Amino acid sequence: MGNTFAEILKNISKKKKSFLCVGLDPDLEKLPSGITKDCDGIVKFNTEIIKATSPYAAAFKPNLAFYEALGLDGLKALEKTLKVIPDDVIVIGDAKRSDISNTSKKYAQSLFNSWGFDAITVNPYLGRDSIEPFLEYEDKGVFVLCLTSNKGANDFQIPEKLYLKIAQYMNEINKKNNCGLVVGATHPEHIKEIRQNSGDMPFLIPGVGAQGGEIKNTVENAKTSDGMGFLINASRSIIYASSKNDFAELAAINAKQTMNDINQALLI
Amino acid sequence: MGNTFAEILKNISKKKKSFLCVGLDPDLEKLPSGITKDCDGIVKFNTEIIKATSPYAAAFKPNLAFYEALGLDGLKALEKTLKVIPDDVIVIGDAKRSDISNTSKKYAQSLFNSWGFDAITVNPYLGRDSIEPFLEYEDKGVFVLCLTSNKGANDFQIPEKLYLKIAQYMNEINKKNNCGLVVGATHPEHIKEIRQNSGDMPFLIPGVGAQGGEIKNTVENAKTSDGMGFLINASRSIIYASSKNDFAELAAINAKQTMNDINQALLI
Repeated sequence: MGNTFAEILKNISKKKKSFLCVGLDPDLEKLPSGITKDCDGIVKFNTEIIKATSPYAAAFKPNLAFYEALGLDGLKALEKTLKVIPDDVIVIGDAKRSDISNTSKKYAQSLFNSWGFDAITVNPYLGRDSIEPFLEYEDKGVFVLCLTSNKGANDFQIPEKLYLKIAQYMNEINKKNNCGLVVGATHPEHIKEIRQNSGDMPFLIPGVGAQGGEIKNTVENAKTSDGMGFLINASRSIIYASSKNDFAELAAINAKQTMNDINQALLI
Repeated sequence: MGNTFAEILKNISKKKKSFLCVGLDPDLEKLPSGITKDCDGIVKFNTEIIKATSPYAAAFKPNLAFYEALGLDGLKALEKTLKVIPDDVIVIGDAKRSDISNTSKKYAQSLFNSWGFDAITVNPYLGRDSIEPFLEYEDKGVFVLCLTSNKGANDFQIPEKLYLKIAQYMNEINKKNNCGLVVGATHPEHIKEIRQNSGDMPFLIPGVGAQGGEIKNTVENAKTSDGMGFLINASRSIIYASSKNDFAELAAINAKQTMNDINQALLI
């Protein structure tokens, strides 16, 4: 297409009028009644969730941990899941990988070529040469962990403002407009500061819903000057909206509501 | 066995008189002549390498990136590889995973239960709740990235001495003697400082051989008061010692030499 990842993402959000990313994190223990607690059940569950929520989603984000936990059969379930995701959304492989340069190259091959994700998440701890091999894929998105949504963000990210250093750093090396940042909605006081230091880089924002982040503040602080430049992820609050056989219906209702809440916050 | 991971590791090093870890990082492009450049070739290559080097190794360390790059077939090749590793060594899954708490639990299940690794590597960027789920497996080892062997260590690990903070932190939470640190041999000036701040925690030390780290200094600075407490990893310098069909023979020679160099450094 010749478009940068940042443009591809904006075009999808414009076309679908959505900034919502739905996290596909299937947990056998949480699957609703009527779904078998195995890998076939996961494929069925994901298929129903995708069908019900895709009208409201700009992106889907499977977290690889939930599939890897079930061994090779779990990864086959991920493979089948990816096949039912429609073409008009971004698919983000939430893998949080990274390694030294020649090894990161192998992870990039795995995630972009073998799995075919449109975008991925990357852990920045190993520094520049661990991130660069992912950036060689020009039209693919690389969301680097900046300030995560969990309590542990206070341990190494917030002291010495490492999150800010990483934001500035990624902004500096973002020559192909394919870099993004993971910024948790649970840190509203820092989101604005990160936006001020990261140009128009897209944010992938977890932490609303089950983790307690608030949409209105988050959107205000995260949006770029054109009122775009972010995806808000919700997983548990959508996919586990009901533990009964109306789970897909309720997932759709919650997805639509979250999409609307985000759009509403953009209009204010 | 009732032993802690630190004890299990020491017992193996004592019994085998070796502190060598052999990295199993098969790269299709680097496989020697006579080995087919596919997943079957990888299994054959690994099998030969393991057979030739296991008399000299205390541990084997497959890096998951090299297998994931080849899709599900690559992971099947890893599965077959693990089956031929003898019982008298530690098997370290070099996966550098981590995520928020409930997701790290899934990675722990994957690496310890599904893959059955004796030890793994973990990226600390997401903080305490990303590390703790791995530590619940009492007799399994968790090597947290402290100071990595690559150039990128200078970007976020060395400024503000984050590597030291992580060493101190892991030493503090090491209640079950199952924590360890990844400390690159390419930073001899820092290894001693890390040892002084991390008690007797075992170090997993990459960066000798192809990456240029030096064994004598490394051993002197890394060893604990009882002259143990570390594994030195070598991958490329052993497994790619020859590109011809004498690769296994030369791998054995290099493994034995590296083992001897380490033991020699301990005697001084």
